[in-house]
Amino acid sequence: MSDEIMNGAESLVRTLLSNGVEVCFTNPGTSEMHFVAALDHIAGMRSILALHENVATGAADGYYRMTGKPASTLLHLGPGLANGLSNLHNAKKAGSGVVNIVGEHASTHIELDAPLTSDIEGIARPVSHWVHTSKSVATVGEDAARAVQAAMTAPGQIATLMLPSDTAWNEGGVAAPAAAPPAPALFNEDLLEDAANSLTGPDALLLLGGMALTEENLTIAGRIAAQTGCALLSEWSNARQERGAGRVFVNRVPYPIDVALKVLEPFKRIVLVGARAPIGFFAYPDKPAILTRDGADILTLAPAGSDLDAAMVALCDATGSTQTPPAHITEPAQRERPTGPINLESLATLISRAIPENAIIVDESVTSGRAFAPATKAAAPHTWLNNCGGSIGYAMPAAVGAAVACPDRKVMCLTGDGSAMYSNQALWTMARENLDITVLIFANRSYQILRGELTNVGVQNAGPRAMDMLTLDRPTLDWVQMSRSMGVTAHSVSTCEDLEAALEEGLSSGKANLIEIVL
Amino acid sequence: MSDEIMNGAESLVRTLLSNGVEVCFTNPGTSEMHFVAALDHIAGMRSILALHENVATGAADGYYRMTGKPASTLLHLGPGLANGLSNLHNAKKAGSGVVNIVGEHASTHIELDAPLTSDIEGIARPVSHWVHTSKSVATVGEDAARAVQAAMTAPGQIATLMLPSDTAWNEGGVAAPAAAPPAPALFNEDLLEDAANSLTGPDALLLLGGMALTEENLTIAGRIAAQTGCALLSEWSNARQERGAGRVFVNRVPYPIDVALKVLEPFKRIVLVGARAPIGFFAYPDKPAILTRDGADILTLAPAGSDLDAAMVALCDATGSTQTPPAHITEPAQRERPTGPINLESLATLISRAIPENAIIVDESVTSGRAFAPATKAAAPHTWLNNCGGSIGYAMPAAVGAAVACPDRKVMCLTGDGSAMYSNQALWTMARENLDITVLIFANRSYQILRGELTNVGVQNAGPRAMDMLTLDRPTLDWVQMSRSMGVTAHSVSTCEDLEAALEEGLSSGKANLIEIVL
Repeated sequence: MSDEIMNGAESLVRTLLSNGVEVCFTNPGTSEMHFVAALDHIAGMRSILALHENVATGAADGYYRMTGKPASTLLHLGPGLANGLSNLHNAKKAGSGVVNIVGEHASTHIELDAPLTSDIEGIARPVSHWVHTSKSVATVGEDAARAVQAAMTAPGQIATLMLPSDTAWNEGGVAAPAAAPPAPALFNEDLLEDAANSLTGPDALLLLGGMALTEENLTIAGRIAAQTGCALLSEWSNARQERGAGRVFVNRVPYPIDVALKVLEPFKRIVLVGARAPIGFFAYPDKPAILTRDGADILTLAPAGSDLDAAMVALCDATGSTQTPPAHITEPAQRERPTGPINLESLATLISRAIPENAIIVDESVTSGRAFAPATKAAAPHTWLNNCGGSIGYAMPAAVGAAVACPDRKVMCLTGDGSAMYSNQALWTMARENLDITVLIFANRSYQILRGELTNVGVQNAGPRAMDMLTLDRPTLDWVQMSRSMGVTAHSVSTCEDLEAALEEGLSSGKANLIEIVL
Repeated sequence: MSDEIMNGAESLVRTLLSNGVEVCFTNPGTSEMHFVAALDHIAGMRSILALHENVATGAADGYYRMTGKPASTLLHLGPGLANGLSNLHNAKKAGSGVVNIVGEHASTHIELDAPLTSDIEGIARPVSHWVHTSKSVATVGEDAARAVQAAMTAPGQIATLMLPSDTAWNEGGVAAPAAAPPAPALFNEDLLEDAANSLTGPDALLLLGGMALTEENLTIAGRIAAQTGCALLSEWSNARQERGAGRVFVNRVPYPIDVALKVLEPFKRIVLVGARAPIGFFAYPDKPAILTRDGADILTLAPAGSDLDAAMVALCDATGSTQTPPAHITEPAQRERPTGPINLESLATLISRAIPENAIIVDESVTSGRAFAPATKAAAPHTWLNNCGGSIGYAMPAAVGAAVACPDRKVMCLTGDGSAMYSNQALWTMARENLDITVLIFANRSYQILRGELTNVGVQNAGPRAMDMLTLDRPTLDWVQMSRSMGVTAHSVSTCEDLEAALEEGLSSGKANLIEIVL
């Protein structure tokens, strides 16, 4: 095929490739068939089929977090985009860059209001930073380049490009050349001196988020803490944090309001780098939503999207910490091997012992997992990804994306049963793509978190009809059959010994496997 | 609890109940806990838990089609609504009334931009006819009454009410009284004489849709056809059609463009009652999208949402057909019992033979099922529901809603494997609620329809990377394990004999069961 004569779909694929977009997570339909055909004869784009769009969008989120490069998704019209919306919400909150390509009816067909016609831009807008519909085949290439630029804008943005099918099939496409990603904004340099001066002693807090949690920046944070005596914390939900033995340990602001208030109470001066001022996940009657003490002096040195690396280096310098050995370096510590029935403590220990060197942990263990963070602090070095948008069903799709991004690393996916059900279709893609993922399902057979929340919002003595809305045990979900139905090896365990054996077998198998842990 | 002191959530539940909304399909979260508590202590609302919101919204669609009354859904913030969006799209296109109750953060919490904060109204608008956020506890009751009125507006509309959690938990709620549903608009009476005059002979067509396909209206259509010699057709996708032996048979406008063009070619004069002028599902290069012949005279006697019963009675009268015995009454005809391996023809015959008297057929057999409509025309009398919005994953959720609506009728759910994967979580609700549903999965292990569409849009000689995006056989989905994992009995069959036995066992069991038909 000559570069001179191409249709719109071909110009789109060539533009994505020349701008570094090399993966497409997709569930296509009729209106995307020319894009599928272009993927077929233009080499270089790895296309990965998902059986539900929320798997595709969640995978793009996980992929970005591990590569810093956007993947594309290919989605079928408004409803296909709608199906992927909640994991785009999560990706948006995580600061992940994603390029959504959404098929649209041919321009002449939209006015006929066919069954699949909908307001696609309207569906896209609430979860997208950038929305555009290609107007003609000649501009598809440059539209795609702009979409990639938007997705690459720090910390990473959601770009959604609608491709009417006639602009895909008409000839006259022009591939746009490679463009450099936009540079991040500067941090607030005018606040640097104030920030450095405020970080003195244990009533000062350096609160980190986003790319301030890279290994390099954690080391800097450790130096600053050692030099100034300030405390370190991260946000509750982190897109990506480097952790484990030999690294600077930074705890998360806790999720439960009362605990968070207590943890944050000492801090009179707070410096934010890549983090926002701590607030509650939800509002509760008669409880504060702002978690810092009244009158706390909060300085936003570097908001999300600004150059966090530069901010950390500058802060290190301004506090005179550049030569200070970092505090809070985690010593390796093998936890004692637990036995007998599994409880949350022994579960955390077993996971900590099992984490392979350089593993990626995708964490959506909403209730069961609150004990994991401290328990795993001294595990082998690893990368930890949280759900940043709070919409459940993120973990298995994000694990798919992380495994595609890092084929030489092992992925552990920690998820509650309620969350996993939301996007169980991800298991099929794990099997199909031979991904090295070990999925741990914490089967407490309820929306356990909501039982606590019912009380937290002030509901006393909930009756059977309410409790029935929070339980998943009638019928019991059988995750072993669920997993095998989609081609993923699976075991169910209820003792520490069995879990240890299953983890060893699964993690060494090099392929997708699932362990149901009955709690 | 006194009627005088109630919180907003309680006023909402009481208002829904007094306005005839008696079922709530739900997946709640923290921000909906007061609504859950209200459901607990106020009797009368059946709450049905779904493990994914698209099951809840699809069930509400099926429920409305079988009762003519809206159900409520209870969804968790923007992402929960987003997850249910594609089946709301389908419900909107079907003319189904649904009342969505979507939890929102407390008013004071929204500005803090918590992880789950999103533009909920923006997410709701593309699939809703009516969108409103309650501003204070005092107005929640009247807001709910307006939502029900909107949902009941003919033919049925999507109403989405956001309930900030403080308006739910604050005291001062006022339940709104019962209100009569709004009357449908008149049909176009000024076109009646023209319409009656144009329905003469075989080049005239009476095209029916929506509530023009009730048993009574079909009988009227049969009289008009007998009297005038006009042809009868329905839209390709019908929200609900009464069919089977003893009823007037009305064929659907075919889905494939070329076939549809040929079927519609003879008609110079077309009268629409509850139907829209036929257009293609998709646009294809070099093919027309308007399926009627050039210059066809198309009269919209009664648009969707107008009084179709009155239009049919008036048209019957104006054509002088009131005493004419109806044409096209289907004679009972038992088809011969097929044997051996299953093919699409024997499959259609076996389904036709198995349809129980008064069954509800929920049909999403996108490719496999095109032969079903003619094959089942002489089956026992039954009701047939199509997917009207084209977003796959509608059938199993809609079957849940139909079974909840009609506990004394058997439901058969016909779905392709690709479609069924989209909302497989519906199986769990079928088991949990002891619903009398027999699910038939047509396992062709591909997005079979797209193989044809690839050619239809002009792509010749698709290569392996393209075909890989259309196949589901690597790994093979095992629907028996999938179904059993969620508590639903299942069998896999590949011969006519086994399918016949499985249908007999499943349909007589009175509970949810699944048959995987390997094609």
